[in-house]
Amino acid sequence: MKLLERLRAIDAEAKLIEHIGAMLGWDQETYMPSAAIDERADQLAFVETLSHQKRTTAEIAEILEALGSTTANPSGPGTLPSIDRAYLRVMRRQYDQKTRIPSELVTEMAKATSLSQAAWIEARKNDDFKSFAPHLARMLDYNRQIAACLDPARRPYDVLLDQFEEGASEAQIAGVFGALRADLVALLDKIRSRPQIDDSFLHHECPTPAQQAASAYFMDVLSYDLSRGRLDVTAHPFTTTLGSSDVRITTRFVENFFPSSVFSTIHETGHALYELGIQPSPEYRRTSLSEASSMAIHESQSRLWENMVGRSMGFWMQHLASLRTMLSPALNGIGLEDFYRAINKVQPSLIRTEADEVTYGLHVILRFELESRMLSGDLPVSDLPAAWNEGMQRLLGVEPPDDARGCLQDIHWSMGSFGYFPSYALGNLYAAQWWDTMKAQGLDPKAAVERGDLGSILAWLRSNVHKPGAVYRPGELVERVSGAPLDPSHFVRYLNEKYARVYGF
Amino acid sequence: MKLLERLRAIDAEAKLIEHIGAMLGWDQETYMPSAAIDERADQLAFVETLSHQKRTTAEIAEILEALGSTTANPSGPGTLPSIDRAYLRVMRRQYDQKTRIPSELVTEMAKATSLSQAAWIEARKNDDFKSFAPHLARMLDYNRQIAACLDPARRPYDVLLDQFEEGASEAQIAGVFGALRADLVALLDKIRSRPQIDDSFLHHECPTPAQQAASAYFMDVLSYDLSRGRLDVTAHPFTTTLGSSDVRITTRFVENFFPSSVFSTIHETGHALYELGIQPSPEYRRTSLSEASSMAIHESQSRLWENMVGRSMGFWMQHLASLRTMLSPALNGIGLEDFYRAINKVQPSLIRTEADEVTYGLHVILRFELESRMLSGDLPVSDLPAAWNEGMQRLLGVEPPDDARGCLQDIHWSMGSFGYFPSYALGNLYAAQWWDTMKAQGLDPKAAVERGDLGSILAWLRSNVHKPGAVYRPGELVERVSGAPLDPSHFVRYLNEKYARVYGF
Repeated sequence: MKLLERLRAIDAEAKLIEHIGAMLGWDQETYMPSAAIDERADQLAFVETLSHQKRTTAEIAEILEALGSTTANPSGPGTLPSIDRAYLRVMRRQYDQKTRIPSELVTEMAKATSLSQAAWIEARKNDDFKSFAPHLARMLDYNRQIAACLDPARRPYDVLLDQFEEGASEAQIAGVFGALRADLVALLDKIRSRPQIDDSFLHHECPTPAQQAASAYFMDVLSYDLSRGRLDVTAHPFTTTLGSSDVRITTRFVENFFPSSVFSTIHETGHALYELGIQPSPEYRRTSLSEASSMAIHESQSRLWENMVGRSMGFWMQHLASLRTMLSPALNGIGLEDFYRAINKVQPSLIRTEADEVTYGLHVILRFELESRMLSGDLPVSDLPAAWNEGMQRLLGVEPPDDARGCLQDIHWSMGSFGYFPSYALGNLYAAQWWDTMKAQGLDPKAAVERGDLGSILAWLRSNVHKPGAVYRPGELVERVSGAPLDPSHFVRYLNEKYARVYGF
Repeated sequence: MKLLERLRAIDAEAKLIEHIGAMLGWDQETYMPSAAIDERADQLAFVETLSHQKRTTAEIAEILEALGSTTANPSGPGTLPSIDRAYLRVMRRQYDQKTRIPSELVTEMAKATSLSQAAWIEARKNDDFKSFAPHLARMLDYNRQIAACLDPARRPYDVLLDQFEEGASEAQIAGVFGALRADLVALLDKIRSRPQIDDSFLHHECPTPAQQAASAYFMDVLSYDLSRGRLDVTAHPFTTTLGSSDVRITTRFVENFFPSSVFSTIHETGHALYELGIQPSPEYRRTSLSEASSMAIHESQSRLWENMVGRSMGFWMQHLASLRTMLSPALNGIGLEDFYRAINKVQPSLIRTEADEVTYGLHVILRFELESRMLSGDLPVSDLPAAWNEGMQRLLGVEPPDDARGCLQDIHWSMGSFGYFPSYALGNLYAAQWWDTMKAQGLDPKAAVERGDLGSILAWLRSNVHKPGAVYRPGELVERVSGAPLDPSHFVRYLNEKYARVYGF
């Protein structure tokens, strides 16, 4: 066991370095003076090089081999305790991924990505897809190369998906999304036939200090421990981990649209609760086993709290009066029913990040289809705008007036990130499956929310989803917890019940 | 010159690491969640080890030797450009200092220091010097060991002083302080014979947001570039350098004593302006040559702006109306003369950090005398409280009612920092000498302040004091700039003129 201890020590040091990188990144987004940006980039690059060195040291391979972990049999011998086997699997996977991509390719791609991002910013500003197209083509090409390095035997998109959602494949996700798409489109049709909801009061002027008080209130309601975290303001909300007891979130305050801060605070708090709840065992503290199972599982936590709890009638039965006081006079005279319907209004729109619960999945499905086709070469980059617009029309019934609000809206592809988008939609599906599992196990989460007992829900999530961290792959986790593989019908049923109530059909 | 480039590259990487350490330290004091403290300590220790490794690598010694820099002749051959010779001197001194102290001693002392600090906090809280005494004895002993490692041929206190004020010795400082002490005591006697000033309005309630606005105003008045810095709130104000374009300050807001934030903001801004103004030459950016000449020179910048500018009549002729508006109603109806006299009130008191311009030096001189005697063994640790109280009575005419407000008040000795205190008083002396030198060179700083032209003063300081950084030792710098060695008569004359006006004698 000396070897395992040594492996954990190397891992913990690499993680410490990564936490320092997270510190530098957090500061860059929150408080850093603007002129410090060049030096900060050098500092971040230094820290990344250091952590890369640490994670690719030959000693890791030697220890893994000595313990019986190989690429073919990553978990090592069955005689080891299962938590140690899980750890060997995680470390083997990480080591293989990090050592299979030549460092020249990493450096080259980092430079190209930086140019690509700059080009994307300009292209979006000027609605000029053509100027971005060569960069997009280059990013696709680098991703093909990376996929080939990681696993030349598999289809490139499968390899990329697996990076974010271990064990996932395009075929599996296509199956899940196929069912989901049909159901979402059908639900959207029903909603379209109903009178639209008036949500104009959500746009009442609401000063930042009042919204700050509301954010603090909801972080407290959700039991976010501020001795282990904090809230700051950034252009785009995020959650970041600076240590096992230092998980910070950010939000933004839009003075004429308070739901932006309220729901992004709840969303990011969901992410933070997950990170803070991971603790597979004391000896695996600060190791790679104390990480999220996958990005989609992470998203299941933010979405569960934001939507299934935070946009439920029971939640606002408890908290609308407080919100009305904190935001006064913005919500004066607004009743529970009107408020509930307004925050759940469904309206097909152009921008993914502003989408409601029903249409959100369709935005993601479109991106999944398009990135898969671009990667395989089936869709030439130059045809992306047309394909995008056709897809928006087909899935959502809206047509982008320009590429800035169309295929140029998201940062992901410009950063060379392909295979990530599905996580957003999978998160909703996992969340609904956790919800139904709680219910099946005798904890009625709806009733708990209605009586203000969020603690029971958090306790269930902690012990079932948070605690094991990366011990289980996402597919294993969902089977272990719910007794079944990922099944989109939970989410579809949840949406149908909810929106039948909201839109009265 | 390849060798010199390589040396600068190693140095720049070490400095980058130190800036990352400063980032972690800044965050710890400002925004870090409380439970993150243990992990943050590990992160800081990791970064310190890394920078120590970088600064003690044998390659530095090899390059220094190859370039002709030795301990006996640190600047190398006279044929090198003078800036490069200054750099060799700085790097040789740094390397010698860092490699002469065995790492076991560093580690051992770090542990002892952490215990000592904890013991000091308790001892101060409980007014229990006895419980701290063994730690103080241990800290003195470690300092004797360190001095012996650094230079066994010199007296220990001289070696320690030289760490903070290169080239200084106890004999030289004793000479300077001897003259100063007599003059300060004489001035204090004169002031004591005059009616005391009413400064009660300085304690009017003043909400934090109003004080924040005032801090922002004075940072702007002093031309602190906020694209390269920022202000935050901490228990104890400080300045910290996170990069050559990232120098941050902090302050604290005391609601019933606004001068605390106003003057600490001006003080720290003075430090920040110095750090931001150092640029001996482009190729020495981000190297150890782009550092302060000494701690006392640093203090000369904060004190010059805080006291010689910030507590002058001319400054408030310009800014009292604005302050009155920002802090309204706290200063309503307070005239210029009353305000000026109040912020310059002299009153012997127990606590150094709260002392006025006249008595401050006496607090420092007491510490200088006592730490020197403790280090030589002339003053046993157990006799410190009595010696302290006797000194306070002799120099300031006040007697501490307990050790908490006596010899336990400062953190320095508990941290094993001996030889640092003199810098505080030397800073005032340097500041007054810069002031008189400006005047002698035809830039009348008093007149400049009166007409609101702080830019001329900053420009003079930048080109004469800031820009060269560590190119000159403090003694060389003062001779170069003013044509004479450090001379306390400038400061004494400044004080006498000022307080004759304030107290009317």
